[in-house]
Amino acid sequence: MDSAVTPTTKSLLDRRDAVLGPNMSTFYEDPVHLVKGAGVWLWDADGKKYLDCYNNVPHVGHCHPHVVDAIAKQAATLNTHTRYLHEGILDYTERLTATFDDPLNTALLCCTGSEANDVALRMAEAVTGKTGIIATDHTYHGNTSTVSQLSTTNTPKLGQSNHIRFVPTPDSYRPASNDPAQFFADQVSAKIAELQASEHGFAALILCPFFGNEGFPDLPAGFLDATLKAVHAAGGILIADEVQPGFGRLGSHFWGHQFQGITPDVVTLGKPMGNGHPVAGVVTSADIMHEFRTAFRYFNTFGGNPVSCAAAMAVMDVIESEGLMTRAADVGAYAKDAMQSLANKHEIIGDVRGKGMFFGAELVTDRATKTPATDYILRVIEELRNRGILLNKIGVHYNTLKIRPNLQFNRENTDQLIETLDAVLTDIQP
Amino acid sequence: MDSAVTPTTKSLLDRRDAVLGPNMSTFYEDPVHLVKGAGVWLWDADGKKYLDCYNNVPHVGHCHPHVVDAIAKQAATLNTHTRYLHEGILDYTERLTATFDDPLNTALLCCTGSEANDVALRMAEAVTGKTGIIATDHTYHGNTSTVSQLSTTNTPKLGQSNHIRFVPTPDSYRPASNDPAQFFADQVSAKIAELQASEHGFAALILCPFFGNEGFPDLPAGFLDATLKAVHAAGGILIADEVQPGFGRLGSHFWGHQFQGITPDVVTLGKPMGNGHPVAGVVTSADIMHEFRTAFRYFNTFGGNPVSCAAAMAVMDVIESEGLMTRAADVGAYAKDAMQSLANKHEIIGDVRGKGMFFGAELVTDRATKTPATDYILRVIEELRNRGILLNKIGVHYNTLKIRPNLQFNRENTDQLIETLDAVLTDIQP
Repeated sequence: MDSAVTPTTKSLLDRRDAVLGPNMSTFYEDPVHLVKGAGVWLWDADGKKYLDCYNNVPHVGHCHPHVVDAIAKQAATLNTHTRYLHEGILDYTERLTATFDDPLNTALLCCTGSEANDVALRMAEAVTGKTGIIATDHTYHGNTSTVSQLSTTNTPKLGQSNHIRFVPTPDSYRPASNDPAQFFADQVSAKIAELQASEHGFAALILCPFFGNEGFPDLPAGFLDATLKAVHAAGGILIADEVQPGFGRLGSHFWGHQFQGITPDVVTLGKPMGNGHPVAGVVTSADIMHEFRTAFRYFNTFGGNPVSCAAAMAVMDVIESEGLMTRAADVGAYAKDAMQSLANKHEIIGDVRGKGMFFGAELVTDRATKTPATDYILRVIEELRNRGILLNKIGVHYNTLKIRPNLQFNRENTDQLIETLDAVLTDIQP
Repeated sequence: MDSAVTPTTKSLLDRRDAVLGPNMSTFYEDPVHLVKGAGVWLWDADGKKYLDCYNNVPHVGHCHPHVVDAIAKQAATLNTHTRYLHEGILDYTERLTATFDDPLNTALLCCTGSEANDVALRMAEAVTGKTGIIATDHTYHGNTSTVSQLSTTNTPKLGQSNHIRFVPTPDSYRPASNDPAQFFADQVSAKIAELQASEHGFAALILCPFFGNEGFPDLPAGFLDATLKAVHAAGGILIADEVQPGFGRLGSHFWGHQFQGITPDVVTLGKPMGNGHPVAGVVTSADIMHEFRTAFRYFNTFGGNPVSCAAAMAVMDVIESEGLMTRAADVGAYAKDAMQSLANKHEIIGDVRGKGMFFGAELVTDRATKTPATDYILRVIEELRNRGILLNKIGVHYNTLKIRPNLQFNRENTDQLIETLDAVLTDIQP
């Protein structure tokens, strides 16, 4: 691998190994050495320009001037914590909670999506008095000791704690049932019963309402209705992890759970919230917040500080003033059509899926058997990188192109993506 | 309580209750509504100026222009994550680890001290294969589900997990033994034996090497030597939480554990690292980092991003260029002398303690019985706030003045603090 990289890259990799330790993951065989970002663009140290079709953290565009200005101004004015009074956190959380349906009217701010999910699990414990959690078998919700246990791909050394149960990820391309909604609800109900029979009891189901890491399957309207009913009937709560689909990314709705037509009990927020500034949060009802804050003492030093709130407020400003949710809907539909056209040309594309600025295509070596083109997709991603397109893979079989650009992505960008992908699929033989 | 506050404050408190939920702690009966900060100063919405003798987060001064510029410039240039290559994290972690003794040569960056301690506990698990943790009975190490269990003052609703054991906080004013170092080591050894006899085994002792939350007792040189020996003899590791004493605050040494004359196995960093920007980290040996990164997959989206590293680098710049560690030593000695003089005048001051920019005095109603003046100190702190001095209380009996200003604090500021405290102790009768 090292032979393929420049001396500068080699030197950076060596320094990483020495001071950051081994196994620090990078993207690509020849990792990209970035120096600049603006809008949908990234530049490397050699001046090469990349179309960023992947990174959702810079939600309103890399280095958006309105967000940068808000951070710079507030950082120069005051940055302290919530044990003093400040309008910033109030103005922001009032604006944020106004985007949710009743009774999701209160918010807690922290720094990372991991911290948000860590809090959400304690909210479930506070409300139910139980600790058993259900997640899908191909998800990821964060990196704290507790939250990292929710991922089957991230098993702790001493084994998975047995208060976690996993249900099969919904797969619209290879459906397990003719009634996927009822099938999923039945799977959840079975795990609820298991937990209720255990010492842990059942506290919560946590899921991404867009099933982003699971490969964003096409699900029928009302997919989660029966599941939510089962969760509530068992005295548990539903936690919706909106770190990926939230803040207008899906185009039609501001939140993924609104697209699903459900109101969860707790919603967690992260990555895009501050356009890269570390701010995250949990939104829930006044009752659940009260239960949590009564059961647990919680203070987060950096959480909700004036600079974090200024960054997050500026992100909301830009989404609204630049009409980015509408753009996500428009460009997303355009991109999905274009990807479908590509599927008509390239046999390797087995399924086109997604919504708004979160879409992709599942690559298969054979459309009849739907055999995942897991090795092939790696070569495609590497070659796209060489041709100036950054994206990645996802899904249960890691054979789905994950295209999740920031909301500045437009039709022209889409054309460049699709044309380059067309050329790569033509040039790289399976 | 509400009757004592202005209509504006009342309105802010009402908005907090509505959108943030109940039990969001504030300082003071009449919470301070801050709008501006610079150096050691804070201003409220009415233009009143406060001398900040408490907040350690803005380590090199509120809104330090060098740090603000660094954040603004990098935020306008590029902000992404560590799966791409960037010099920022390398330049910073190389500079950071150079302040540590061998073999503490590798670093992991995250966003909060809580995340750092959460990682440190997994490092202990990775190295030892055990999960039992020992902490003092009056500490606080952070707010994740796992880390919050290390605090006896923050007990989870469903009870303390039984893999945590607590040892009595060292108390130099009311010593439990003529040989406090051996006494503490013996307490730790007893808990090690308990854990070894349990299913958990013994993984780590975690402590603040300055025992900040415990009331920063005056401890003899080599206080932790026997303890560290016992920890290592049992196959465990020592985690030093440097969130409070680190980054030169103690004046004589850059890190609290260096002041103690020991080399821990893992060191955690937080609050002051980015002067308020959410950046934190874990420093350890290459071997332990390797064990951790082999046992656990860990990625932190915001951790070590270019803006966080620029903020943290700027903090190091200012500490060095403005000689802030030397100033902490000088002003700290001056302040401790002044506090001692005050103790000669005011019978209520039972003990003066501290080092560098972390000092205080224990208030007692009777020097013979050393009865904590726990109610009185609250009135003192409130009156200091009314007279423009912000500080707080700490320690096992919550009767110790906690004075922990940022490193811009000078002799003139000390004079103002001491004169005001003198007046308040005179005016407020016990």
